Amino acid sequence: MEAELKQMLIDLETLKRSLPDPSHHASIDQMRSRVEYLTTIANYGPTLRTKVKDMSAEVVDSNPYSRLMALQRMGIVENYERIRGFSVAIVGVGGVGSVAAEMLTRCGIGRLLLYDYDKVELANMNRLFFRPEQVGMTKTDAARQTLSDINPDVLIESYTLNITTVQGFETFMASLRSKTDPQSKDGSGVDLVLSCVDNYEARMVVNQACNELNQTWMESGVSEDAVSGHIQLLIPGETACFACAPPLVVASGVDERTLKREGVCAASLPTTMGVVAGLLVQNTLKYLLKFGLVSPYLGYNALKDYFPTMEMKPNPQCSNASCLERQKEFSLTKPARDAAAKAKMEAEALLATECPVHADNEWNISVVDDSELDKADVRISDVLPEGLVRELPSADTIHQLPVPEDNTNTVEDLEDLRRQLEALNG
Amino acid sequence: MEAELKQMLIDLETLKRSLPDPSHHASIDQMRSRVEYLTTIANYGPTLRTKVKDMSAEVVDSNPYSRLMALQRMGIVENYERIRGFSVAIVGVGGVGSVAAEMLTRCGIGRLLLYDYDKVELANMNRLFFRPEQVGMTKTDAARQTLSDINPDVLIESYTLNITTVQGFETFMASLRSKTDPQSKDGSGVDLVLSCVDNYEARMVVNQACNELNQTWMESGVSEDAVSGHIQLLIPGETACFACAPPLVVASGVDERTLKREGVCAASLPTTMGVVAGLLVQNTLKYLLKFGLVSPYLGYNALKDYFPTMEMKPNPQCSNASCLERQKEFSLTKPARDAAAKAKMEAEALLATECPVHADNEWNISVVDDSELDKADVRISDVLPEGLVRELPSADTIHQLPVPEDNTNTVEDLEDLRRQLEALNG
Repeated sequence: MEAELKQMLIDLETLKRSLPDPSHHASIDQMRSRVEYLTTIANYGPTLRTKVKDMSAEVVDSNPYSRLMALQRMGIVENYERIRGFSVAIVGVGGVGSVAAEMLTRCGIGRLLLYDYDKVELANMNRLFFRPEQVGMTKTDAARQTLSDINPDVLIESYTLNITTVQGFETFMASLRSKTDPQSKDGSGVDLVLSCVDNYEARMVVNQACNELNQTWMESGVSEDAVSGHIQLLIPGETACFACAPPLVVASGVDERTLKREGVCAASLPTTMGVVAGLLVQNTLKYLLKFGLVSPYLGYNALKDYFPTMEMKPNPQCSNASCLERQKEFSLTKPARDAAAKAKMEAEALLATECPVHADNEWNISVVDDSELDKADVRISDVLPEGLVRELPSADTIHQLPVPEDNTNTVEDLEDLRRQLEALNG
Repeated sequence: MEAELKQMLIDLETLKRSLPDPSHHASIDQMRSRVEYLTTIANYGPTLRTKVKDMSAEVVDSNPYSRLMALQRMGIVENYERIRGFSVAIVGVGGVGSVAAEMLTRCGIGRLLLYDYDKVELANMNRLFFRPEQVGMTKTDAARQTLSDINPDVLIESYTLNITTVQGFETFMASLRSKTDPQSKDGSGVDLVLSCVDNYEARMVVNQACNELNQTWMESGVSEDAVSGHIQLLIPGETACFACAPPLVVASGVDERTLKREGVCAASLPTTMGVVAGLLVQNTLKYLLKFGLVSPYLGYNALKDYFPTMEMKPNPQCSNASCLERQKEFSLTKPARDAAAKAKMEAEALLATECPVHADNEWNISVVDDSELDKADVRISDVLPEGLVRELPSADTIHQLPVPEDNTNTVEDLEDLRRQLEALNG
């Protein structure tokens, strides 16, 4: 609450400065004194933490960032503090989205945009994050309360709306476009969108928004039987969009509306949703802070602890017009990308011959030889993620490219796959 | 406070109407949502949930167990409510243990025993669960507070002690032996022990206790660079114990005490710890409620999203006397186990020829053909989990059995491996 009131003061001051007419200033001053009064009377609770100006690497018990800044010393992340400059939008604050929001908040993300229209119910208590005393609050309000108590350094914007309505979609688009830095150029004002919704329609809306804004996003999902899930990276023009290749769980022909019938509900588990949220945010951190490999698709089969991966190229006959535009742009910039990649490789090769990266090894850290692990990755050549195998016609009708160098599966002819799925569902 | 906030809303509306330029409206709308949010949280006092007598499958918003009981209808778990009869001990309530405890609490476990001697610090805030207002409390007290608010149906016992001290070990053993049902026979009073500690010494103590009590347990761990982790199932006499095959992260020769030096700390991430906790509790649920396959060992390499698995047989020359006793007992009961397994297989074969398990398919659920997935599991034949590959002498000095039918790796000659590790560390 303290953070909210403080932010109100800043907002009022900004608004005041942008208004030339002094007749408005009195009204704003009046509101400011109200906020100051509320700040005085509000009871903040015993020891809420205060804002921190810089992320310190100092190892003292009172430093909330010491274990994160240690990622630099351990050689995992080059500059952890960059995280404060990033904005992430989370669509859907349910079993996966709320945990993802908490993880990013504890990691000290700069700005978090939350979207949901649902209320907290006791029936949500079998998943992490929401608490019984929040029952009846909107999920966005409850999340904002918990998250700003955990880390007041994070700027949280919450939107209680349904993105699948016309009005909701407009606000959604406007909020994604709005920037913290007004000097920056066109396009999206966020660095990544995480889709944590539970239905096909909402996913298609996120897809539409991200294709229009040329916005990279990650999709996540958990099956109705609670024992499998997935995450997927979608880069407009570069990877398949959600309309290029509808997700396999949706393609299975189950009408998801049947799940909303009175007296009927899908199963869920805090474990599966926690794992999916963890994998989603881990890949978000890798993507934003540029370390490790970001998975293009990662499945989780909880019954067998099996984790399929694959890659999907965009569909040249995709039904989404914005996707086709992005594909065209992407192919036009290919020569420039190839040249940049070549130059980077050459520079790295040159650097490698000059000197070792770490001459001393104070922490006694050794690098594991990954060549053995790489060999093991040749495992998904003929496997599709959960939900697909039985639903589709036999695999030989799907044209398959030879396994590419990175050993992940690429489904190339998506139009063919799409026709088959439509025939199955029709 | 309510009146002040109400007046703020009116002031904002008046100001908005007096401003002709729509560019100011967004800023006012954002402030209005802030005030609405403050109004909501000002109105909510704590409304804690009451105890529930039976786990109902009724689908109403007020039923905290509806999404869990749905696991039965989905055909995943035969009898979910059995979970109320189980006791689980969690040793170490840190980044993994606290999240594991929350997951089990939300799943409605019967009894939870928690062990830790540490206090909550702001430096722990980069992991899930503990909140800034709990700083200074013992982790056991803070956890008990949060968990009993979330689910008052769970019986929580917390022990603020260090199991590596003589006194602490005695209390630890006594608490594991104590039973909710005084009529039950000798041995342990818990169904599973989860080790969520962060050091070698404490793991050896859990190992000792579980070997003595013939108690199945699961071990978990996260690396000091925060980007890998593992879980492991240990069944005394049947699988390798912790002394049979010391964990590979410990075997790497890093003196863990160096990590406790003043001004030095290991890195940690809420993502890695959340994933490890999720995998740990998922396998706990599979083990207790008998569904899916419980992984004997599952690694997590966050940089590559790689999940190695393997199996480890006990070491006939293990240095732990209780382990040798359990191995002897296990080999003595082999004929009886083989006969029981054979009888079960025959009974199942007979049943399968009689009728389909589900004649109708109201939920339109289809079973995925796993034969493709199984093929993909032939990936770990010559791979050891993270941390081992580089540290060990070349692989040909480790005697390797032919890959068994279930396609997971079995390291047989552990004594040989142990000697090599000791030579490396010596």
